[in-house]
Order: sequence, then structure tokens, then C-alpha cells
Amino acid sequence: MTALSFYVPVAFAADAKDFMVGAPPAVETRVDKSNWAYGPHNRWGLQHVREITSTQGISKGDGEIRALPEKLQDIASISLETLDGKPGTISDWLDSSYTDGFLILHKGNIITETYMNSMTDDSYHNFFSMSKSFTGSLAGLLIESGDLDTTAKVAQYVPEMVGGAYAEATVRQLMDMTVGIAYSEDYDDPEADVFAYAASSNANPNPKGLTLYGVLPTFKKAGQHGEKFHYVTANTDALGWVLQRASGRDLAELLTTEIWSKIGAEQDAYVISDLDGTPWLGGGLNATLRDAGRFGLMMLHDGKNGNDQVIPSTFVDDVQASAIETGYPGVSYRSQWWVDVKNENYSAVGVAGQRILIAPEQDLVVVKFSSWPALSGYHAEGRAYDARALQAIIDHVETL
Amino acid sequence: MTALSFYVPVAFAADAKDFMVGAPPAVETRVDKSNWAYGPHNRWGLQHVREITSTQGISKGDGEIRALPEKLQDIASISLETLDGKPGTISDWLDSSYTDGFLILHKGNIITETYMNSMTDDSYHNFFSMSKSFTGSLAGLLIESGDLDTTAKVAQYVPEMVGGAYAEATVRQLMDMTVGIAYSEDYDDPEADVFAYAASSNANPNPKGLTLYGVLPTFKKAGQHGEKFHYVTANTDALGWVLQRASGRDLAELLTTEIWSKIGAEQDAYVISDLDGTPWLGGGLNATLRDAGRFGLMMLHDGKNGNDQVIPSTFVDDVQASAIETGYPGVSYRSQWWVDVKNENYSAVGVAGQRILIAPEQDLVVVKFSSWPALSGYHAEGRAYDARALQAIIDHVETL
Repeated sequence: MTALSFYVPVAFAADAKDFMVGAPPAVETRVDKSNWAYGPHNRWGLQHVREITSTQGISKGDGEIRALPEKLQDIASISLETLDGKPGTISDWLDSSYTDGFLILHKGNIITETYMNSMTDDSYHNFFSMSKSFTGSLAGLLIESGDLDTTAKVAQYVPEMVGGAYAEATVRQLMDMTVGIAYSEDYDDPEADVFAYAASSNANPNPKGLTLYGVLPTFKKAGQHGEKFHYVTANTDALGWVLQRASGRDLAELLTTEIWSKIGAEQDAYVISDLDGTPWLGGGLNATLRDAGRFGLMMLHDGKNGNDQVIPSTFVDDVQASAIETGYPGVSYRSQWWVDVKNENYSAVGVAGQRILIAPEQDLVVVKFSSWPALSGYHAEGRAYDARALQAIIDHVETL
Repeated sequence: MTALSFYVPVAFAADAKDFMVGAPPAVETRVDKSNWAYGPHNRWGLQHVREITSTQGISKGDGEIRALPEKLQDIASISLETLDGKPGTISDWLDSSYTDGFLILHKGNIITETYMNSMTDDSYHNFFSMSKSFTGSLAGLLIESGDLDTTAKVAQYVPEMVGGAYAEATVRQLMDMTVGIAYSEDYDDPEADVFAYAASSNANPNPKGLTLYGVLPTFKKAGQHGEKFHYVTANTDALGWVLQRASGRDLAELLTTEIWSKIGAEQDAYVISDLDGTPWLGGGLNATLRDAGRFGLMMLHDGKNGNDQVIPSTFVDDVQASAIETGYPGVSYRSQWWVDVKNENYSAVGVAGQRILIAPEQDLVVVKFSSWPALSGYHAEGRAYDARALQAIIDHVETL
């Protein structure tokens, strides 16, 4: 394997502390709405989203913080083939995969917790598409309470969608990303639909003052709903709009009341919100590493935090048991979660190297926050490297 | 006194909960960068700044929360002439002065704590120009430590200022608002300099991508420095820039380390920050009512929280003892604080009805958060009404 184009020493060397240097910051170190999500500026940007744009708080409430006892293990020296195909270790992987934070919870204990790139245990980090799995889990709650019918068409909940791609899609098709929609999510094409959508989220420059609920009804149908897996970030915000209408509740309030205040979080979370105050559920959540781990533990324990059923176990079971064709061998996508069919584990996954892995068979949660420089580069190579590393970790904890 | 133009029943009836209604919000209820600071939208906006623009966190740290014991008194029924010149009470004043939160601390105890307009004890509220007094107090710290020379010219610390209004002004002239500058702060004139400056803070629409440290050096000199009091919000950000250069430290970090983490705050604070990540010290601070009270208590106790000297007592004494001509009879302005010379008390004051009053003789701190609809209307009438009410409260606590 030859050196990859995005694997550039200069970009790689960049550390969060090399950005926003000076008052005012030197131009080449300045991070703003136009570059915070892209390398190398994302080295700082992903840890400082609130300084870039408008956000809504998601409170941890007054509940008890879930303790995470430490039983540290030597994970760093586990053997692993490197990105260049040479013999290496987990330590090499962490060093070369733009790691910001890395946490392994085994049997409820922290067996490793690492911060790089000037991140600390108090630092926030953007979740990107891991946010989707939170939204899917909220849908699970509303299904259980009877407020949400997955067989209903989207327009039944959101009449504003009539005439657009989403109107006749079912809630289930939204959840599983099988909507027939004309939409390009090619991050290397500046004309891709994803960028107009991204502007509307207010996470990127938005000179036209677009809003999520202004843009979503304008997308056009293409092909048949339910026919094939088509990963479209906007679908998650369409799902969010459905959840809002089905529950009659504010989305940030739902995230606060139904999830964040119930997982024993140590810190509040926050979510990017648009000019209408709509939380960007497709990619806007931010929290600390340990709190991402606590969310994973709750899912791992069939949706329970202690005796408190946070997410219905029927929802968790349904995600875990899924085997839906996605085009990726052995990989299913269900209710906004990625499922490894062979290993019977599932993950929240975000671009640029974000992951919360939940592996019930090994009583294991792995969280990785990263800031890969090229979003598409991460897709192509980063995931394969991550998959090797996660497998090595799974194999290792089975020996413990 | 006839009914005032801004005293409009419809605007007055507006409650924070009447804004951002619906998903997306109904247009007439929508609050964004263009209207959050103005009535009636400021009823919601002043409590939700983080949802409007970019901000920086100011951490309370891990220290002990300062307890505020309750010894409630009947304050509401204290007699007071109303806005219309009729007999009334403090209760009438609170009802008709767009109150969001009201707190009286007497001898360290809460004797009254009231929330209106859907505000709660967890709600944040914008401080507007009360932020200036925090900046002035930081200057006090750096004077004490020897890092800041008040007789030095601004350009000595900030060479970027050369050629502009600030270059030859002294640090003391910045602190006391006696800079000779061509600058209009007429809030009713949309062409006033204050609005270009406000855009640069990123608290308002900013299509040109202005920044505070981009705009400050462009202001022109007018008249002589040190000649007369001229209240200019931008001066405080010029002072902030001086403090940053004098200390070599980040302004949000200074606020965190030197003030917020030392006053026993219950919640973090936050500050609006511009496209360079510069905190808007002229008006961008946000915190809860009680934490504003805790800051007041620290100042009341000669800059001490318990045994911890937070702000130098020499600074506090100097503010309190000042008698500088401002053009307002009996009112001095010193080091970014307003001083009532006759009553020997001093206040942080912000537009639209914000105040932290510190009255050592009565062992009293009064905090009021408000959302008066017309910023200039507040100046003209609101302050006079507030002054009568504060005097009535001072007179009352002297009988306790």
C-alpha cells in the first residue's frame, strides 16, 4: 500500500494548539464556519464547535453521575498491521489515525482512556453522524410509547413535505435510509446537495439564510422508496421533524429529558442549531468522551442505565438482530445504527473518524473521536484501518 | 407623566414563551441575530444568546458553590411612585419594568428572588454592558500584578492601533471612558458607529465578516483624550485587547481563572465571541441571576470571596471613592463601573435594564435582569424609574 494522499506529514503534525494562535489569530491558524470541519483546521474545530456557530444545550440534569471505575489494561501494545501494511500496534494506530480521544469500557470498567491533540476529559468533540444514532434511538422511544407509527408516511406527520422526496416515504424508510431521493453526499464535490443542506444547518457559511425545514421539502424523489440503502444525512433531520410532530415536543428537550439526563452524564451536551432553532440531528451533537461512553453503556445494557429503562430493549434487540443489505459486505444499517452482522455488534459512526462501538458479546464499548483531514479519505481508508483495530481489540478482550 | 411610546401593551404582554413557537417557528415569533436584542424579541433573545450566535465558555471550575441562604422579606409591597406617577409598589415596578429576574442579597442572605417572563434560576441572561465592569475588574488585577501600566499609551500594548483613535489614549482613559473618539452610540440611528461595531462582535448580522480587532483600529480620533466622559462600548474591547497583550493570556481564560472560578459560581458563564474567537467584552457576557449576585457579593466584600482575594481591594476602593464628572449629576464612572457618589454605592449597568448594584454601607447587592423593548427608551425613562426603586429598597433595608 502506498502513502495515501491525505496522509500528509504537515497536516498530520498539526495539533489543536497550533490553531487560533494570537489575538487576533494569525490568518493561517484561523478556524471559522468555512473550515472547522476540514483538515487540518478540524484538529481544533471539532473540539470548539460552540465557538464557531449557534448551539442548543442538552442538560445532564441533576441525576447521579455514572461512575466509570478504572481497571487499566495494556491495550497500546496489541499487535496490528499499520496503514502502510507493516507490523505495528494499537499505539501506532492511535498515533496515525488522527485520534483526539479513545476510550474502552470492558465489563463497565475503563480499561484504557487516552487523549491526544490537546483534548482533555473535559473537552467537547463533535459527533458528526454519530448524532444520527441518538435520533434513531429517540424514534425507538416514540414507537414504544405509541406516538410514532413506522408504517405511516412522512407527510402524515409533516404536511410541509408534500410534493418533495420525503412525502410518500414511510417513517421506517427514513430510519433505515431507504428513501428514494435525488441527493448527492460526495464530500469532494462542492456542488453536492450535502453542502446546501450543510449550509442550512448553520454549521457552515450560510449567506442565503437557509434553514433545515426550509430545505428538506425541496429535495426531489428519485427511484422507489424502500428499494435500496442510500445514506443521506438530511434523512435524519426529516426523521427529527417527524419526531417533533409525533411527540409535540422540542427536539433538544427530547434529547435532554429522554436520553442525556438518564445516562449518568458527567457534563451537559450541546447540538448545533439552525436559524430556526432546529437542532441539526444529522451531525450536530457534541459531548465529552466519557459521556459518549456512558451512552454506549446504556445501549450495551439493553437500553438500561441501572434499573432505569432509557431506550426500549425491543428497539435495541431489533437493531442488533438486523441484517439489511447496504452494499457493504456484512454490514447492516438499522434505525440509524451501523450493524456488524458477523460480530453481532453495532456502532454509531461519524465522518472523520467518530465511533461508539457496542459489542454485547464481549461486554465492550469502544469510543473513538478523531479528526481525519479528508472526509472522503476517511471513508475510503480510515474505516478499513479502524475495522482492523477494532477487531484486534475485540480479539484481545476475549482473552481477558 | 403621560404614557411612554415604548410602553405598549402588546409588546409588554409578550412573554419569552410566545417566541420560537412551532417547528419551524411562526415567522412573527422567530428570533435571530437581527432581532434578539430588540423588543419584543429580546423577551426570549436575552435568555437564549447561545442559540443565536457563537460563544465561548467561562468555566466555574471545580470549586465549592457559594451558599446563598434565604431570609425572605416582603419587598414587593414597598411603596413606590409608578412610571405613570401614581402611588404604587416595588411589585408594580417589577411588573412594569420588563423584569426577567430580580435578586436582593442583604447581609449575604437572599431576601428576595423573583423570576418573570419564563425565566428560572437555571436560565442564562445577557449582561450587555454589565460585561464592562468584569473587564474593568480584570484590569484591576493586572494593575496589581504589575502587568498593566495605566499611564501607558494603548499603542504600547497594541501596535495595531497606531493611526487610529486609540493609539495615543492611555489605559486609564480607556478604563474611564475619556477617549477622544469620533463615534456615535445612538441606538435609534441605524447608521451609528455602534452598529458596525456590533456587527463585528458577531452578535448581530455580519455579512461583511467584520471582527472586533479588525474594526477597532479604524475608528478616528476626535477632540482630546482625557478631556471628557464619552461612553463608547468599543472602548471596552480596546481595553480587552490591551489586557490580552499585557498578560499574554486569552481573555476567556482570564475571566475563567481570575473571576468566574473564584466567586463560588453555581453555573458556568459564557460570552459571545467574534469570528476571530475574541470575546465581546463590551456586552457579551451571559450567566444566571444568582451567579451575577455572587459576583456582586465578592465586590461588596472588598474583592474577597471568603478568604480568597479575587479582585484587589485597592481597585474596589478606588472605584467606590471616585467622583468623576460624567454629565449625569451625582454619577461618576470609574474603571468600567458606575458610581453613585452621594449614596457611596456602585453598579454594573447594561442597556435594556441590567444592573448589579453594590451598596457596602447597607451590606446590599441588588441584581436586576430585564428586557426593555427600546434600548434608548430604557435610557430615557427606565433608569429614572429604576433609580427610584433602588432608593426605596436602600431606604427599606436600612430599617431591617
